[in-house]
Amino acid sequence: MSNALRLGIAGLGTVGVGVIKIVQEHAKMLNARSGRPISISAVSARSKAKDRGVDLSAYAWEDDPVALAKRDDIDVFVELIGGDSGPAKAAVEAAIANGKHVVTANKAMLALHGQALALAAETADVNLRFEAAVAGGIPIIKALTEGLAANKINRVMGVMNGTCNYILTRMESAKLPYEAVFKEADDLGYLEADPNLDVGGIDAAHKLVLLSSIAFGTQVNFAGAELEGIGQITIQDIDHARDMGFRIKLLGVAQMTDAGLEQSMRPVLVPASSPLAQLEGGTNMVVVEGDAVGQVVLRGAGAGEGPTASAVMGDVMDIARGLKLPVFGQPANTLEPAKAAKASNTSAFSLRLNLKDVPGVMAQISTALAEAGVSIDRMRQFSHDDISAPVMIVTHPTKRDIVEAAFAAIAGLNVTTQAPLMLSIVDA
Amino acid sequence: MSNALRLGIAGLGTVGVGVIKIVQEHAKMLNARSGRPISISAVSARSKAKDRGVDLSAYAWEDDPVALAKRDDIDVFVELIGGDSGPAKAAVEAAIANGKHVVTANKAMLALHGQALALAAETADVNLRFEAAVAGGIPIIKALTEGLAANKINRVMGVMNGTCNYILTRMESAKLPYEAVFKEADDLGYLEADPNLDVGGIDAAHKLVLLSSIAFGTQVNFAGAELEGIGQITIQDIDHARDMGFRIKLLGVAQMTDAGLEQSMRPVLVPASSPLAQLEGGTNMVVVEGDAVGQVVLRGAGAGEGPTASAVMGDVMDIARGLKLPVFGQPANTLEPAKAAKASNTSAFSLRLNLKDVPGVMAQISTALAEAGVSIDRMRQFSHDDISAPVMIVTHPTKRDIVEAAFAAIAGLNVTTQAPLMLSIVDA
Repeated sequence: MSNALRLGIAGLGTVGVGVIKIVQEHAKMLNARSGRPISISAVSARSKAKDRGVDLSAYAWEDDPVALAKRDDIDVFVELIGGDSGPAKAAVEAAIANGKHVVTANKAMLALHGQALALAAETADVNLRFEAAVAGGIPIIKALTEGLAANKINRVMGVMNGTCNYILTRMESAKLPYEAVFKEADDLGYLEADPNLDVGGIDAAHKLVLLSSIAFGTQVNFAGAELEGIGQITIQDIDHARDMGFRIKLLGVAQMTDAGLEQSMRPVLVPASSPLAQLEGGTNMVVVEGDAVGQVVLRGAGAGEGPTASAVMGDVMDIARGLKLPVFGQPANTLEPAKAAKASNTSAFSLRLNLKDVPGVMAQISTALAEAGVSIDRMRQFSHDDISAPVMIVTHPTKRDIVEAAFAAIAGLNVTTQAPLMLSIVDA
Repeated sequence: MSNALRLGIAGLGTVGVGVIKIVQEHAKMLNARSGRPISISAVSARSKAKDRGVDLSAYAWEDDPVALAKRDDIDVFVELIGGDSGPAKAAVEAAIANGKHVVTANKAMLALHGQALALAAETADVNLRFEAAVAGGIPIIKALTEGLAANKINRVMGVMNGTCNYILTRMESAKLPYEAVFKEADDLGYLEADPNLDVGGIDAAHKLVLLSSIAFGTQVNFAGAELEGIGQITIQDIDHARDMGFRIKLLGVAQMTDAGLEQSMRPVLVPASSPLAQLEGGTNMVVVEGDAVGQVVLRGAGAGEGPTASAVMGDVMDIARGLKLPVFGQPANTLEPAKAAKASNTSAFSLRLNLKDVPGVMAQISTALAEAGVSIDRMRQFSHDDISAPVMIVTHPTKRDIVEAAFAAIAGLNVTTQAPLMLSIVDA
């Protein structure tokens, strides 16, 4: 075992336990594939007494993850604590300072502190790898950083939050309102301690900004991302979208334009027959568009013990095999600052309007749209009560800012009974 | 440029030109991402005079690819000649013997000689990389070898021959018989010089056996693959499949069982709504099922200048970055010989029968199936002339050998007017 790669694992939740199982159950296979044994020297978590269903007796225990990160008998610090700062970040910094490689699943920490951590890791000449931080078991970081490295990337898109996807698909299948499904998801333990991380699109945006840093050679810039959660999506929106051939998904889109880096995480409509529309529950999908390769799509489980542990261990295997790579695919000191730009995508849009049921309202709406230069492709008024008429308008493809201007004009008309909603229509 | 990685490119067809374009147009990006310049020292092809639309004036010319492979001023030999032996293999062997890394798109050569070439490369301590040989621009070799390396792989499946996919989808959309679409494909230059490489499933099987070597840690074994081409698929089969909710795809399936390694490349039915069914033309899809990660699916362009060059250059970037990896993911001298086993998959099957239009025939068929233990899920007799009644039977899930036995019994009844066809139904 003299040349074994020795792990220290901090955080023994679902993923940590999954990692330990792989190391214990597949020792021979991991050795054959990486050319050396992979072993665990020590672990750390909040409760030593808790029964996690795996045998930890062969590993040293540390109450303090920072102490674990500094141990002489580990080569790789596996950070599965979570949280954008606090003990996770302190331990990762300690590991780097002590010359240990780091493998982490911590998207929040990297989205907020990725540039500083990457600089530190590269200065210390250690790897900082984070496949498990984005889209669970899908090897998208590797695909983007390595397999597609010869492409100028035009666009990256992804459905990367299983909880939002669960809520949206469950609202549709069970015909339950958002609030009821939100409570279900909470009861099932699907939601983060701060649910806004999920339903506000923050968690998914953390993942998106890591992808865009690699794709566009820019410093990770979470503050520059545009965020719109799913809390405003009603069951009526979902039903009406379905009636018109669409489903609603929380989609991240990142692209570089002359104006700067656009990063948006928003609910969008996708054609019901598209691969994106067919994603159920915790399945993630990432779409990469490169100048040479065209469109490459990866799909798989976005969370869970096995898939996330698979990603963690993929990184560990890379380190065991001697891979050495800058954190975001090129040296951190060569990454450009990312100037944030507002999403400028040209697409069709859907407008949800709940109009006062009085004569002339539709004429006012049509006029406002026409004056803003928005051309209507399809429009439908759904059955309604006496007070409010739900209308869904699908525009011809146009620029987002033109539709936003029309939207502002409509708001000024005082003809709606509920906040209107504008969603872009993405076909991928 | 002292630390540049210097390429020698043999074969200046579509892909070779694509590689040169990437090197010329993206020099700065490639340098930033790989940490060193990537340059071309010399090229080789059959005709020096031919105008290929790229400027070759800065590169030395070799008529003989073997001479190119031996040049002192190259670090990586890029083999884009093709053919399972002949000059391609001679040049690759010369490159390895001269301590050059090799990047190749040559699936036929590796499917037939992969084990010997891998042993030679590993003995010489050079990389032999072949991302471009399988599924074009999709980084599936990397995903399987590296990203998913911590998984015991249960099954690998793929639609990996664009020409077959083109023929099958074109037959359906244009309502043209196989022969007519085959001729179209030939006129469009889609077919290999020996068209049986495409329509016989050989090219796709070459790709499959490379994937299964990595997935299962076995020596590549093309001779052990079961092959069934698409030549027997009629427009009637396609129409009837569609009527019953399916489409026909040429699908490769590889899995390891107690009996040995199953590798089959066959036309199958897939549910019309499945992602596999929606593949059009040259789009490939590969499905990997791992014990930890579950199902991961990759989709993208399976051929063409840009996508294939993207894969070639991905491998080149890896080498520039210092990656060192056994050819098939673990040292070739540790790969087990692959004992071939007949595909044993349990699935539903469809049976196409053209029955003589005489009384009692259907009773005979039903009896033969029942006696073999095959249970019918759905059956449909389509409209017909006086001579022959086309029938499509969908069985309940059962073992392949049971359906084959029933099929043999039906053949003995002498009640069909045309060879019957049996296709498994795959839902993925």
